[in-house]
Amino acid sequence: MFRTKTCGELTIANVGEVVTLAGWVQKSRKMGGMTFLDMRDRYGITQVVFNEEKDAALCEQANKLGREWVIQVEGTVAERSNKNKNISTGEIEIIANKLVVLSASEVPPFTIEDNSDGGDDLRMQYRYLDIRRNPVRQNLELRHKIAFEVRRYLDGQGFLEVETPVLIKSTPEGARDFVVPSRMNPGQFYALPQSPQQFKQLLMVAGIDRYFQIVKCFRDEDLRADRQPEFTQIDCEMSFIEQEDVINMFEGMIKHIFKYVKGVEFDGPFPRMTWHECMRLYGSDKPDMRFGMTFVELKDLTEGRNFPVFDAAKFVVGICAEGCASYTRKQLDGLTDFVKKPQVGAKGLVYVKYEADGSLKSSVDKFYSQDDLKKWAERFNAKPGDLMLILCGEDADKTRKQMNELRLEMGERLGLRDKNKFAPLWVIDFPLFEWNEEDQRFYAMHHPFTSPKLEDVQYLDSDPGRVRANAYDLAMNGVELGGGSIRIHDSALQNKMFELLGFTPEKAMDQFGCLINAFKYGAPPHGGLAFGLDRVVSMLAGLDSIRDCIAFPKNNSGRDVMIDSPSEIDEQQLKELSLEVKVEK
Amino acid sequence: MFRTKTCGELTIANVGEVVTLAGWVQKSRKMGGMTFLDMRDRYGITQVVFNEEKDAALCEQANKLGREWVIQVEGTVAERSNKNKNISTGEIEIIANKLVVLSASEVPPFTIEDNSDGGDDLRMQYRYLDIRRNPVRQNLELRHKIAFEVRRYLDGQGFLEVETPVLIKSTPEGARDFVVPSRMNPGQFYALPQSPQQFKQLLMVAGIDRYFQIVKCFRDEDLRADRQPEFTQIDCEMSFIEQEDVINMFEGMIKHIFKYVKGVEFDGPFPRMTWHECMRLYGSDKPDMRFGMTFVELKDLTEGRNFPVFDAAKFVVGICAEGCASYTRKQLDGLTDFVKKPQVGAKGLVYVKYEADGSLKSSVDKFYSQDDLKKWAERFNAKPGDLMLILCGEDADKTRKQMNELRLEMGERLGLRDKNKFAPLWVIDFPLFEWNEEDQRFYAMHHPFTSPKLEDVQYLDSDPGRVRANAYDLAMNGVELGGGSIRIHDSALQNKMFELLGFTPEKAMDQFGCLINAFKYGAPPHGGLAFGLDRVVSMLAGLDSIRDCIAFPKNNSGRDVMIDSPSEIDEQQLKELSLEVKVEK
Repeated sequence: MFRTKTCGELTIANVGEVVTLAGWVQKSRKMGGMTFLDMRDRYGITQVVFNEEKDAALCEQANKLGREWVIQVEGTVAERSNKNKNISTGEIEIIANKLVVLSASEVPPFTIEDNSDGGDDLRMQYRYLDIRRNPVRQNLELRHKIAFEVRRYLDGQGFLEVETPVLIKSTPEGARDFVVPSRMNPGQFYALPQSPQQFKQLLMVAGIDRYFQIVKCFRDEDLRADRQPEFTQIDCEMSFIEQEDVINMFEGMIKHIFKYVKGVEFDGPFPRMTWHECMRLYGSDKPDMRFGMTFVELKDLTEGRNFPVFDAAKFVVGICAEGCASYTRKQLDGLTDFVKKPQVGAKGLVYVKYEADGSLKSSVDKFYSQDDLKKWAERFNAKPGDLMLILCGEDADKTRKQMNELRLEMGERLGLRDKNKFAPLWVIDFPLFEWNEEDQRFYAMHHPFTSPKLEDVQYLDSDPGRVRANAYDLAMNGVELGGGSIRIHDSALQNKMFELLGFTPEKAMDQFGCLINAFKYGAPPHGGLAFGLDRVVSMLAGLDSIRDCIAFPKNNSGRDVMIDSPSEIDEQQLKELSLEVKVEK
Repeated sequence: MFRTKTCGELTIANVGEVVTLAGWVQKSRKMGGMTFLDMRDRYGITQVVFNEEKDAALCEQANKLGREWVIQVEGTVAERSNKNKNISTGEIEIIANKLVVLSASEVPPFTIEDNSDGGDDLRMQYRYLDIRRNPVRQNLELRHKIAFEVRRYLDGQGFLEVETPVLIKSTPEGARDFVVPSRMNPGQFYALPQSPQQFKQLLMVAGIDRYFQIVKCFRDEDLRADRQPEFTQIDCEMSFIEQEDVINMFEGMIKHIFKYVKGVEFDGPFPRMTWHECMRLYGSDKPDMRFGMTFVELKDLTEGRNFPVFDAAKFVVGICAEGCASYTRKQLDGLTDFVKKPQVGAKGLVYVKYEADGSLKSSVDKFYSQDDLKKWAERFNAKPGDLMLILCGEDADKTRKQMNELRLEMGERLGLRDKNKFAPLWVIDFPLFEWNEEDQRFYAMHHPFTSPKLEDVQYLDSDPGRVRANAYDLAMNGVELGGGSIRIHDSALQNKMFELLGFTPEKAMDQFGCLINAFKYGAPPHGGLAFGLDRVVSMLAGLDSIRDCIAFPKNNSGRDVMIDSPSEIDEQQLKELSLEVKVEK
């Protein structure tokens, strides 16, 4: 061992002890005949003192050290004269009597400080230096703790962690698979799993009863800000259960994590809301419940006043922003610009200010009287000082989505999205199918194995859009942490689903044959869900991007700029794999 | 919930309770007017009784059930008249009053019993049925427990589990990589990790100090009996440590696993032996220490008697099999056949029987007198009743390997390889390099990052074969459970190693550039090791193959016969990946 203590554990109680520390030089400063060195390791920072008068040679050696050199110091713990209350070791320092350089360092490309001067690209290229910074290391520590507590909880509930294969079979349905050529089976490919969905259902057929796995999954998608080609799921499945059982079990898990990792306890059960209600009140299937500002529909109140915009619209919806009647022209223009951004896509914004004196002032005063506006205000439950913001459109769903963006923006501006507040919501009763305008067909909203609600099975043929699924998501603070469903365990119903989703029996067999066969030998009722570990960690860490809680993330082109991957491979390697590269120019 | 109790928990204490169980029909039998059903779930088996007299309709319903149907039964717990002492629920039965069929089953292709009538191929094809069998499920439960205890121990020791990427960079050195074409970077490939070696070293440079990960690794090798293309490692690394620290830490981990999973406690520290000593005494770097039978070298005692075989040999070695002097001609011929098998490769076997009367009888009596043989026996420490078995050859290493096979075979025949006995051994001081006859060059025995022993660095140029490494393996019962090394953390020494291994600076940079660069910014002294989780589980489960402790293993052609993978993919998919398949006929 190169040390007897870490740089984070010495306190006033250790004064007088001779200790050996090892770590990195955080910084050094000369003051008079003294050299002060901050030595850092994973556990903390300790001040080391070299006294020129006492040992000039040693002090000179210390003066030659640069930032990020790795050193070993032997010395005596002493009480500091000017104490640092900000760190746990701030009451002591080490009077050095021996110094060994374990490893020199070039000047790092950015400072290893909580607030580094390194930009994102540089930090990613030198991620091994970036991780030395407290905030990044703390994210990894948090991730470790969360994963550990997930396992502790699920183990306690009788779940078995079963590893499912990474080299599986490609199923073109859904997102794109990453594939892996098989040298031993020329011309054939494995696929990397987008999720272990089929395997976990097979484990239920196998009688495993309660399964989980913290597992890497893969999706070859064009990457958006918060997507990674490889990501980690907390994947779970149970047998002989109903939706209520799954929700309770995993609500317990989330509560366990928050309690043991963050010391946060939730009051009572998590609220629940149907998907339709979520869409109606928040225009989102993952509403941010940290604040209200629910949607108010106004179409009926806007008619007969010859305002062409509202008259032409099929749908008029608004929110009431408390205390915002004092918004300036500039602020209101800013909001109008916001809703007109292509990412939001509204054509314009109508506002009504409920002035302190009780009068109402709006951008549509030309068309609507004070009495009209009063009726609107009543429906909004608005009071003097509030600001009503109204959007309209042809399509209710689209308009709601736009209003959702505006609501979140207002929440942000009003400071209602506090990162230390956690507002969970179970979204239930998802539709089974989702209509795709482009392809003019229904797709499974979750996946083809999701069970319809028993009472809605009657509409499968006549009105598929009306069928609700036994599917549920857990949303928190506007983020979908996870979701799942009760699965179909009946072969006949499963075949019906494939048919409705446009699979020929041959195609269904080709892609899902193993599961279809397995269901012939006694499948128990089962269901489960999966949480995105990256998202759960980001939530508890208060991060805006999942990238910051991943040790070695990839960039938006799917590249690891640190190890420089992907890269070209040998002709010989390609030949062994029976492949040729054909890049179209 | 479809049940109020599991099939494994009811005892005499529950008599009189009304319960609901759900599970599979293990078997049913009619006796008089009664139908007895064994119902099975993950937790056990419970007997259910249907009485024709009491409820003829219900009984008739029960009589229609087949093996592996999934049912739900409501009934009253009653004391059994003829108890079954072999199962925990053997004192009670359920008097059924309600039966629901949850899922029917076709007749399974093999019996779901501890000793199934299914052959290996059939069991693999229907693995989801195979896992319903107790022995297979118990292996998965054991695997879960071991992984959990590994995490509990390492978490307690301050290790952080950090996920390293699965999509990394191909490094052609070593075994073959599986590669993954990148659609977004046409003509380029990721590789799947053979181990997270570089990443864990980068994490040490990053100051993580104590890292571990239970992680899938991949190797595109022609598969032998006990290899899988994907396998799981317990991968670990520590900073500011020496070999002694690593050995103690992970000896502690193995002891923890055995204690908490198997209730086995080891006496004192694990024995250690240098690699050279292992080779000399056992002809193996992973000797089975459950029994003695160490090698005895005889060359000097065999000379001058004109036995052409021994005279021509450079090396003569033997073992003494206690109490085997009574071996028959047929048994001795069997051993001769064994050593002559191509997998062993010896040319013949010499034996000397130490008869009960003190006389010595050998297959080389023509050349050696009783006095000669007496001297041999003395060196063997043999006593009347023992059998000495002797091999010879040109090459000491090859002959030792042959003798190792014979020793293991004798251990097997003599019942000395008890699966309930566990004999660990740290093998230390591995050579740094391994000479490759074919390529006429040295290769790194472990990998290019392994540190030579400080005192042997002087021989790096003059006598590389003599240089010992700070490398260590943990062997148990003849299996290598894991191994590792202290790493080089000095750029100059690392460059020297690359040079000795025949890397040009460009090639080294191309393959290991990231690590080489990282070492410029202050690398701490570090080292670690990796255990094969599959092997650790197999060891504790007493299995002969790792395949039996993997939920969904692949066969010797790398195929998953259950999901039928690998398989062909669409032309469209290939085109998106800028690839063409060229299978040579």
